[in-house]
This record gives sequence, C-alpha cells and structure tokens, in this order.
Amino acid sequence: MNNFALKGDILFSRTPTELAVFERHYAVCIDGVCAGVFSELPERFAAIPVLDYTGKLIIPGLVDLHAHAPQYAFRALDMDLELLDWLDTQTFPQEARYADLGYAQTAYTIFADALRRSATTRAVLFGTLHVPATRLLMELLEQSGLETYVGKVNMNRNSPDCLCESDAATSLAATRDWLDSCRSLTHCRPILTPRFVPSCSDALMQGLGDLQRETGLPVQSHLSENQGEIAWVRELCPQSTSYGDAYDRFGLFGGDGCPTIMAHCVWSDADERALMKRNGVFIAHCPQSNTNLSSGIAPVRTFLREGLSVGLGSDIAGGVHLSILRAMADAVQVSKLRWRLCDQSLPPLTLPEAFFLGTRGGGAFFGKVGAFEPGYAFDALVLDDADLPCPFALTPEQRLTRIIYLSDDHAVQHKFVDGRKLF
Amino acid sequence: MNNFALKGDILFSRTPTELAVFERHYAVCIDGVCAGVFSELPERFAAIPVLDYTGKLIIPGLVDLHAHAPQYAFRALDMDLELLDWLDTQTFPQEARYADLGYAQTAYTIFADALRRSATTRAVLFGTLHVPATRLLMELLEQSGLETYVGKVNMNRNSPDCLCESDAATSLAATRDWLDSCRSLTHCRPILTPRFVPSCSDALMQGLGDLQRETGLPVQSHLSENQGEIAWVRELCPQSTSYGDAYDRFGLFGGDGCPTIMAHCVWSDADERALMKRNGVFIAHCPQSNTNLSSGIAPVRTFLREGLSVGLGSDIAGGVHLSILRAMADAVQVSKLRWRLCDQSLPPLTLPEAFFLGTRGGGAFFGKVGAFEPGYAFDALVLDDADLPCPFALTPEQRLTRIIYLSDDHAVQHKFVDGRKLF
Repeated sequence: MNNFALKGDILFSRTPTELAVFERHYAVCIDGVCAGVFSELPERFAAIPVLDYTGKLIIPGLVDLHAHAPQYAFRALDMDLELLDWLDTQTFPQEARYADLGYAQTAYTIFADALRRSATTRAVLFGTLHVPATRLLMELLEQSGLETYVGKVNMNRNSPDCLCESDAATSLAATRDWLDSCRSLTHCRPILTPRFVPSCSDALMQGLGDLQRETGLPVQSHLSENQGEIAWVRELCPQSTSYGDAYDRFGLFGGDGCPTIMAHCVWSDADERALMKRNGVFIAHCPQSNTNLSSGIAPVRTFLREGLSVGLGSDIAGGVHLSILRAMADAVQVSKLRWRLCDQSLPPLTLPEAFFLGTRGGGAFFGKVGAFEPGYAFDALVLDDADLPCPFALTPEQRLTRIIYLSDDHAVQHKFVDGRKLF
Repeated sequence: MNNFALKGDILFSRTPTELAVFERHYAVCIDGVCAGVFSELPERFAAIPVLDYTGKLIIPGLVDLHAHAPQYAFRALDMDLELLDWLDTQTFPQEARYADLGYAQTAYTIFADALRRSATTRAVLFGTLHVPATRLLMELLEQSGLETYVGKVNMNRNSPDCLCESDAATSLAATRDWLDSCRSLTHCRPILTPRFVPSCSDALMQGLGDLQRETGLPVQSHLSENQGEIAWVRELCPQSTSYGDAYDRFGLFGGDGCPTIMAHCVWSDADERALMKRNGVFIAHCPQSNTNLSSGIAPVRTFLREGLSVGLGSDIAGGVHLSILRAMADAVQVSKLRWRLCDQSLPPLTLPEAFFLGTRGGGAFFGKVGAFEPGYAFDALVLDDADLPCPFALTPEQRLTRIIYLSDDHAVQHKFVDGRKLF
C-alpha cells in the first residue's frame, strides 16, 4: 500500500523559523512521495485509503546525520574523558570486538532494533573497519525498512594494533570488497568513511579520494571537534591550511559529485566555514556528544547565518541518546549556555529552528526529505502524547514542543519511510 | 510490613567520590530504618521476610530539593525566555489558575501521580500563594506515601494583580491559616516559602522571620539565579551586602533552628558562599533549569571544595524533567561545559559525585537519608534495566551509570520510603 492519506494534526518546517501547522488535515502519499497536505481530501484522491490518526500529531521522520553503530553497545559508559583519551581507552578496544561476527550479530541486532523503534527514519552511520561486520550491519538495516548510509571505516595509523589496517593498499582493497558486497542493497547504501585525519595516512586519503571520483559515493568524517585533536592535525599535516583543507586536498571535502558530511565543526574558523560553504559540505551538529566529551559548543547560529547546511547527529556513543528529539532539545539548551557564557552576539536557537535541523536540515542530504511538501519523500511519524496529561488544552505546536523537550521516542506510534509503513 | 530485607545488587554513596557496591547482598529494614547491608542474612534477622530482587539494582531513593508543583502542568512550554520575562509572561499567569480549586485538583493529581511513579522518594516543593490549593496538594502528597515539604508561597510586591497578596499582614494571616490546616499531616510537612526577594516586601520578610523563630519551620527560596535578578535585588535592597544577606537580615537564611534551602546560587560570590557555609544553608543545584532559562552554570566543584551542603533540584518548570536521574546527568554535563568554556581550574563533576548529590547530598536536609548505612531512613528503589540490552556483561556500577545517563524513570520497578512499599 503505497498510496494513502494520513489524517491528523500535521506539522513540518517551511523554513528554519516557520513551523507550518495543519490541524485535522490529510497528508497524501502517492507512490511513496508526498502529494501535499489538504483540509479535505481532493476528488482525485477519493479512492485512496485514509489512516485516521485524528487527535495525534503527524510530523516528518527525523534524520540522524552522524552516529557510530558499533558504539551503541557501550553508550553511557566511561564518559569522564576527553575525545582522544576516550578513543584510546574505550572506543578503539570496543570497536575491535567487531572482528568477531557473532558479537557483531548480537550488538548490531540490538542497535538496528533500537533505531527502527526510534523517531529516526534516515541515518548516516559509521561501522567499524571490519568488512564482514559492516556488511552484516547493512543487512540488518536493509531489513529494518529505514533509509540509511553506512560506512566501513578506514584507519591505518595512530590506532592500536587491534583496530588498525596494516597499510593503505590493504584498507583500500577491503573497501572495494565491501563495496562489491553491498550492491544488492537498496535501502542501506555505502558511504566512504575515513575515520578522521589522524587515523588515515596520506596514501590512504589519496586512494579514498581516487575511489570517490571513480564511484561518486558520498563521504563522511569528523572535523574540528576538540582542540587537542585540531592541534594534532596541524602537526600531522603542516602543509594544510586547516583541518578541512586536509580533507579537501584529497578531494574528500564536498564539491561537485562528492556529497559530504562532517561531524562536529565545534571550532571551525571563518576560513574553514567558507570552504564548507563553497563545497556544500553538510555539518552534523552533535550537541550532546560535544558536551559529554567536553569538546565545546558549536556556533550553529553562525552556521545558519552564513547559509551552511546543518543537520543533527546523535553521535552515539559520544552522545548516549539515540533520539533526535533529544538532539533537538540539546541543541537549544547548549546554544543558550553558549549565548550566556561565550558570545551574546549569537542568539540561542529556538525550538522551531532545532526542529528544522532534525528534519529538513539533515534531510536535505538525502534529497527532498523532511517536509510534507509535494515531491518530498513520504517519511512520517505518528506521535501519541496520551501519556503526557495536561490540565489545559494544548495547541499542536505546544504538544510537539513537549514531546521534543521530554524527548520521548515512546511517543512514536507509527512510522513511515518512503511511504512504507514500518509499524 | 516494616521489617524485611531486600536482596539484589546494592549501591550507595559513602562519600562524594566513593560509590559502595555490594553484589547479591541484603539490605535490611527494621522499623523503617536501615540496619545495614550484609552478604548473608545475620541470624538475628532470620525471621524477617526477604524480597528477592536478584539481578536488579537497589539504590537509595532520590531527593529533589527544589521543584514548583504548580508548574508541572506547563513544563516545556515557552522556554525561549530568561527568568524575569518567563515569570511575567508564563509562570505568574499559570500559577494564578490555582485560585480555582477544580483546576488545582486536576493539575495536582497529575503532578502527584508523576512524582509517585518517579525515582524521587523525597521532595521539597513550592506550591502557589493559594491556601486551599496548597492544602489540596499536600493532601495528595500525603496520600502518595512520599516524604515531602511543601510551601504556600508568599509574594506581595512586583507581581501581577492575579498573583499578588495585598499586603504583608494578609500574606502572613494566610500563612497562619495554612499552617493550622496542615497539622494533621505527617508525611507532607510545611516549609516557609518567600518566593524570592523581589516578590516580598520588608514587612513580609520581617513577619516571616518572626514566624520562623516562633515555629522553627524550615525555609526555602531562590538565590543568585540570574544576573538581571541579582541587579534588581541590589536596587531593591541597597542596604544589603549581598542577595543572601537580604534574607539573612530577616533571619531567613539558615543558622541555628532554621534549616534553609536556597535554589540555584549560580552567581553566588565568595562572601555569599561563606555566609551559606556559616549558616548551614543547603544549595539546590538545578542544572537543567539554569540551562533552559539561560541563567548560567553553577560552580558545584567550588561548593564541594568549600564544604557547602549541596543537593539536586529538578526545578520544574524551569527544568522540564521531573527525574533526578536526569538532574544527575545534567549536572555532570553542564560541569563539563563550564570547565571547557569558563574555568579549567574547576574539574567537571564525575558521575559518582552527581549520584551523591542526588542521594546523600540532598538527603541530609531530611536527616539521615540517602544511604544504606545503619540508622538511615530506609528509602530504596529497585531498578530493572532489562529493556536496555547489552551484548557484554556489565558491572552493577556500569548498569547504574547507564540508567542515570539514559535518565529512565521507567526503570523504577519498586519504591520504598521509610520502609513503606509504595509499589
């Protein structure tokens, strides 16, 4: 059933500041694509079934632009560290476990189930360097009905023996094997994934850049998250003018035919931001991770003013919550602290802006995604807030605001991706 | 049944930095008081029933030192404001609704149910200025089985007509009526509650100070939350040396026979902190509220180093989450941002420290509360994390850490207060 209408209180972002609200309206799905929102069902759609969710909220599916699937297993443990120490003592040994396909099966089944049940309909994910485990993750996600990108991670230096590819050629050959193994998948697609500059030799970056130009695949990595990390990149790449330039010189930083997501960008300066804008690089803003790892607070107001493309990321397991509802609330909250403590020239984000980031903002990486406008992919959540009683009447916008702040993915009663009903 | 043992994995704070962990132990309750924790049940307790929660976690009940019961109804709405604007446009009109006892019945029933189901066993709450509604709230809390303090709020200036007592004498007479009406309650007790200095005339403060000395009742209020508020207090009280001194000169700021909680203390300077220490004033640290209202981040590390008494507050509805698990995680997270962005001489809080604050730290306001040590009130939570699967074995401390970060009050399976089983 790919032609139908949902009836209920429909909300989506028109722009970062305008939240469109349609009470008791119909959102029409034809062949998996939105045909519009209507107060009465138009004559031409009279024959399609109506799923009546009167009294419930209907919003676009949420988009997670950055999360590490293998890290879901140890989320919330040992968070009293900064990035580089956390990678060495916790993350790398944990990711090394995925050499064991049995372990991967158990852990990735838990992750895929959680992602399927969450408010997220589309996600861009890191796997590990292991081809079989990453392929298994992709199979589970394919079956979940979600639309996802997954990257087999490339890393061949400054990493422990248990989680390090021996050289660039080995890493690149494994990447080609992995790409060959993904050809049958349609909902879970590959994305090139150099872990971050410190983990990838110049030869590996060069090879990945060549592979990107050959395949046209998208790219994801990390950028300017932590001050210690940035100083290290400066040492490792003395010839680069910025951390972003260290990707760009290998053709792994956006531009024509190279859709790219960079996570964090907490400390990106004006030159780096200008390069991101020129190259159309998407920023995955991960407010909770940047808090948990004491990285700082990214200037999202600056990103929006400068016209950069920004979405939200849970950054499991720098972030501990898979919910993009929580990421929206976190984004507003940390922006208030940044305003108070750092820079009163940058007003905090508003809740409608955070909602935009978690729907259309990140959705744009997938194309026409994140709104109920004609031609947009029909990704929808039906939200039930019956277990949040209130002694007075609430508008649909107020109800949505409560669900976001209370970050309760339990509110997700039904979920549609490209018009497919997952539950 | 007030004599029994709970069997399970028992955790509690010995000190701010030491979390005691007893796997498969027994916590013994005799007449509502903890008799200790044992690996085998001692002979003298052989006759008492054992509630077997093997495989589950058992922790002390959590303590919320600061929340506004009437504000639970509108939590999460209109959070894009600072304190003083938020009070005027949102909070005061909302609190005025409690003049209607029917509204109060609906709203307070929702609140009392939520508090009962939460991880909180003891709470210190603001009501509104209305005597009948506040008395109703206390009756509902009395029935809940929780141990609480509730204050009828005093406010007679700088407040809208809909929420302002006409003069000090009227406010004080209403307070005496309210105190008379509470005498039959045993689990919900009154606490004197001048809203904050800007809302209370000198005559009202003087009368409340006299009433405190007459009754020996505890006191709660707000202190040094927001910079605009502090500047206003300086204007209103030119003779006071600090915001804290503006309470102290009326005998409403701790000292012998005057147990006092001050919420926030985000911007308390060294003199104000020294006065709090001298007078034994408890600080209710409310990290989420201080974020939502763009107030700032309180220097809890400084409070602990200086030996001040500190607990956690949800500060509903400056904070939107009733969970003290969430307040623990928030306390750690904002302390990391403070360290990164403001002052690297103050290390972030660790999770064991935040757990201490939410148990023993705030519990000390109630006496021997917040630990399973002999002589402590037997307040306990049985936590079930079965819906948080993990592909590897976790220690009890790791399991508790996950429950705190994921802030899931759904984990609370059973709850005991003073040895009474609530559910």
